[in-house]
Amino acid sequence: MARHLSRQQIEAPVAVAGNGLLDRRVFLRSGALFAAAVTGYSVVKSAGAEPLVDAPWSRETGAVTPALQTPSRFEKAVTRVLSNPKNETRTSHARTPHHLLNGTFTPNSLHFTINHSGLPDIDPGQHRLAIHGLVKQPLVFTVDALSRYPMVSRMTFIECGGNSAPMFSNEPVQATVQALHGLVSCAEWTGVPLSTLIEETGIDPKAKWIVAEGADSLALHRSVPLPKALDDAMIALYQNGERLMPGNGYPMRLLLPGWEGNMNVKFLRRIKLVEQPVMSYYEGRTYSQILPDGKAYRFYFVQEVKSFITHPSYGLKMKGPGYYEISGVAYSGDGRITKVMVSADGGRSWGEAALQEPVLSKAYTRFRMPWRWDGGPAVLLSRAWDDQGNAQPLRAEFVAKRGQTKKPVTNPMGFVNQHYNSITSWSVDGNGEIKHVYA
Amino acid sequence: MARHLSRQQIEAPVAVAGNGLLDRRVFLRSGALFAAAVTGYSVVKSAGAEPLVDAPWSRETGAVTPALQTPSRFEKAVTRVLSNPKNETRTSHARTPHHLLNGTFTPNSLHFTINHSGLPDIDPGQHRLAIHGLVKQPLVFTVDALSRYPMVSRMTFIECGGNSAPMFSNEPVQATVQALHGLVSCAEWTGVPLSTLIEETGIDPKAKWIVAEGADSLALHRSVPLPKALDDAMIALYQNGERLMPGNGYPMRLLLPGWEGNMNVKFLRRIKLVEQPVMSYYEGRTYSQILPDGKAYRFYFVQEVKSFITHPSYGLKMKGPGYYEISGVAYSGDGRITKVMVSADGGRSWGEAALQEPVLSKAYTRFRMPWRWDGGPAVLLSRAWDDQGNAQPLRAEFVAKRGQTKKPVTNPMGFVNQHYNSITSWSVDGNGEIKHVYA
Repeated sequence: MARHLSRQQIEAPVAVAGNGLLDRRVFLRSGALFAAAVTGYSVVKSAGAEPLVDAPWSRETGAVTPALQTPSRFEKAVTRVLSNPKNETRTSHARTPHHLLNGTFTPNSLHFTINHSGLPDIDPGQHRLAIHGLVKQPLVFTVDALSRYPMVSRMTFIECGGNSAPMFSNEPVQATVQALHGLVSCAEWTGVPLSTLIEETGIDPKAKWIVAEGADSLALHRSVPLPKALDDAMIALYQNGERLMPGNGYPMRLLLPGWEGNMNVKFLRRIKLVEQPVMSYYEGRTYSQILPDGKAYRFYFVQEVKSFITHPSYGLKMKGPGYYEISGVAYSGDGRITKVMVSADGGRSWGEAALQEPVLSKAYTRFRMPWRWDGGPAVLLSRAWDDQGNAQPLRAEFVAKRGQTKKPVTNPMGFVNQHYNSITSWSVDGNGEIKHVYA
Repeated sequence: MARHLSRQQIEAPVAVAGNGLLDRRVFLRSGALFAAAVTGYSVVKSAGAEPLVDAPWSRETGAVTPALQTPSRFEKAVTRVLSNPKNETRTSHARTPHHLLNGTFTPNSLHFTINHSGLPDIDPGQHRLAIHGLVKQPLVFTVDALSRYPMVSRMTFIECGGNSAPMFSNEPVQATVQALHGLVSCAEWTGVPLSTLIEETGIDPKAKWIVAEGADSLALHRSVPLPKALDDAMIALYQNGERLMPGNGYPMRLLLPGWEGNMNVKFLRRIKLVEQPVMSYYEGRTYSQILPDGKAYRFYFVQEVKSFITHPSYGLKMKGPGYYEISGVAYSGDGRITKVMVSADGGRSWGEAALQEPVLSKAYTRFRMPWRWDGGPAVLLSRAWDDQGNAQPLRAEFVAKRGQTKKPVTNPMGFVNQHYNSITSWSVDGNGEIKHVYA
C-alpha cells in the first residue's frame, strides 16, 4: 500500500555520489522520491474535472489485425543501421539501436547481424548437420531429427569481436550507441546441447578441437576447443521462441555462450573433431590483433566484462533538469554480472546501480541508476564487475595494453582492433546536448 | 567431458512412469541415453569420408540484409490465426501458434491480441495518461514524461479469460493447441510501477478501486482493486525490448501480472480512483460466468494454475517410434510453478518433468519430459502446481464445479464459459496420429 512521505523526505532523497546520483535502494522504498522530482515541468497538472479530450483514434474504428504484428508507424526510427544496403560483394553489418530499446534482451527484428556473402535462403528440409572426423561413428542429422532431442533454453548475448571498434580511436568518435556498440545483442536460444550429439558419435581420444562450418557460400568456419563444445555449447534451433532469423543462422547455428560472435557459426552444417585448430581466415587474420608490444593474441575467445549506458546517450536530448533514469546493459562472457557502478561527475565519485532481476550468466543485465540532473554539466560513466572477479577496465589502462589508433577516424569500419571492453562516457552540457567523451 | 555409457546403460534408461516416460534427471547426466534412442531411423549415418554435398545456397551469394529481420519464407505456417480477417464490426482475435514455438516466451509478431474495435493508430506525441478521481492532485502524463521515471522489467504471461473456452465442450473439440489455447502469450514488459505514479497523485482515503480506461473507440474499461494497483501493477511502455506492438496497447498499457487479460487495459489513457467498481460491460456481462448451481462469480481476476503440452500436439505427426521430448508451458497467476507432472498412459502413472530455469513468478515455465515412444497407443497429459499450493484441477472435478456445454460445439467462439484451467490430453495412435481426448 502507499506510503506517504513528508515534504522534507521528498525533497531530500539520499544522494550516493556526486552530481545528483541517488541511492538505488529507494527504488524499493518509494517511487515518490522520483516522482516528485519530475513534477512541475514534464508532467501536465490536470486543471479540471475532465482531464481528457477524445483524440481521432478514440472516435473511429481502428485497422485490421495482421497475422504477424509489426511496430507502430510512429516507431520507424527503431531500426537497424546497415553498412551494405545494396548487398555489394563485401560484408554486411546491421546494428542494434540500443538507445531506442529497453528491457533485458533484443527482439528478433533488431538483433544485430553480420553476413559476409549475403543471407542464404536455406531449405530446412534439405539442410543437414554432419558430425565427423575424430569420432567413433560419424552421423548426419536433419532438422526434424534434432527437433526430437532433449532441448534447453538460455538467454545469452552474442557480440562481434569487432564491436565497439570505433572506441580505439584516440579521439572520441561522435556517434550513437548503435554505431559504437551495435554489434552485440541478447536473445533466448533454444536447442540441443552439443554434448548430447558428440556423446552419440563418440570421441576418438586424439580429438582436442572441433571445427564448425557454415552452409553459407563463404563456408565460414572456426576452431573451438573440445572442452567448450562439451560444456555449454548448443545447436540452436529457436531464437526468442520462434525459429532462428535468416540473418542469425536459420535453420541452425552453433551457440557458444560468451564467446566471440562469429565462432557461434551460423547455417551450421558441419562439426569436425580434429587434433589441432585449422587457423581459418577468421583465426589467422581478422581476430589476431597486434598489440602495442608487437605481439598478438593467437586466440581471444571470451567477450570480457563490459557495460555501456543506453539512456541518456548520444543522439538523445535531455528535456530540462530534474529526475532521469540512467540505464544501460552490462554483460560478461565469463559469467554473471555482480555490480555496476555509475558516475555522473566523470569518474570522481560512483554510486551502485540497481540490477534488474533475474541476473543470468552470460546474458544482458539491465542496470538502472536514479539521477536528478541539475541542468549543469555532467559526465556519465558505467563500469561493471562479474562473478569471476573481473572488472571492466578503465580506458587509460586498457589502451596502454591494447593500443589505440593514432588519429581520430570517423568511419566505424576503419579499425583493425578487436575486443574493446573499456568504459564509454557521455557528457551532458547545460543545453542538454549529449556528446561522446573520454573521461 | 564426455562420459561413455555401456550398451546396457544406453538401452535401459531409467523409467519413471508407464508407457515410456524417462527420468528427467538423466538430462543432467548424459544425453547419450536419448541420442541412442533416436539412432537408426531419424539420424542418417554417414557413409564415407565426405558426408556433405554443397546445396545451392552454398554456391551463390545470398540476399540483401534487411533493416528489420523477418522469418524465413520456409516458416510461413508460423503465424497467428485470425477470427476476423476482414475487420468486420465485431471482435478480432489473433491466436498464438504454440505448437510451432519453443522456449519460454512469445515473440512480439506472434503475441496473441484481441481488439474489439480494430487497432487504433495512436500518435504517442499526442497521447496522454490521466490519473484523477479520489486523489489529492490529479496529473496528466505524456509518454516522454513517463519515460523518465524509474522503470522495471518483468516477464509475465497475459491470458484472455476466455482462453481455452472450447475445452468446456462435453466432447473434445478436434483442434490445434493454437485454436484451443491460443489466447495466452508471455513477454517481458518494461515500464513504470503504477504505485510510483499513484503515490505522486496521492490517495483520498475513500478510494478503494481504480477504473482503467483505454483510448480505443470502445473505451474499454475495467475496475481493479486498489491494492493490486499498488502491488505489482505497471504502466508498460516496452514489450520484449521494443515499444509495445499496436495490438498489445501501443503506446502504453496497464499490466496486472497474473490477472484476466482485458483488465490489462491497452491504449491506457485514464486511471480514476473510485470507491466502488463501475460494473462495466466486461464486468457486468462477459466475465461473470453462470455456474452449474445457478450462481455466478461477480469477479474472477486471477488466471489460475494451468499447463498444456505443445509438443507433441494435435496437428503435428509422430515420425516413427523412439525418443521424443514432451514439452509444454505451465503458468500461474498466483505465483511460481513448482512442479509439472506428465503422464503417457492417460493419467494412470505420472513422472515429474524438468522445468527450464529460471522459473519466474506469473510467467511461462517451459517443462520437458523425456519419452521413448514404443509406437503403440498413448495418451499424454500434463498437470501443474504453484507455490501457493494450487494444483491444476482434473477435468472431472473441474466441470462438476464450473459446468460444461451440453453438445460438442466446434466453433471456438460458441462458448460463454470462462477461465478454463483444467488438463488437456492428446492421444497418439499406432499410426502416429494425434487427437484431442478427455482422459
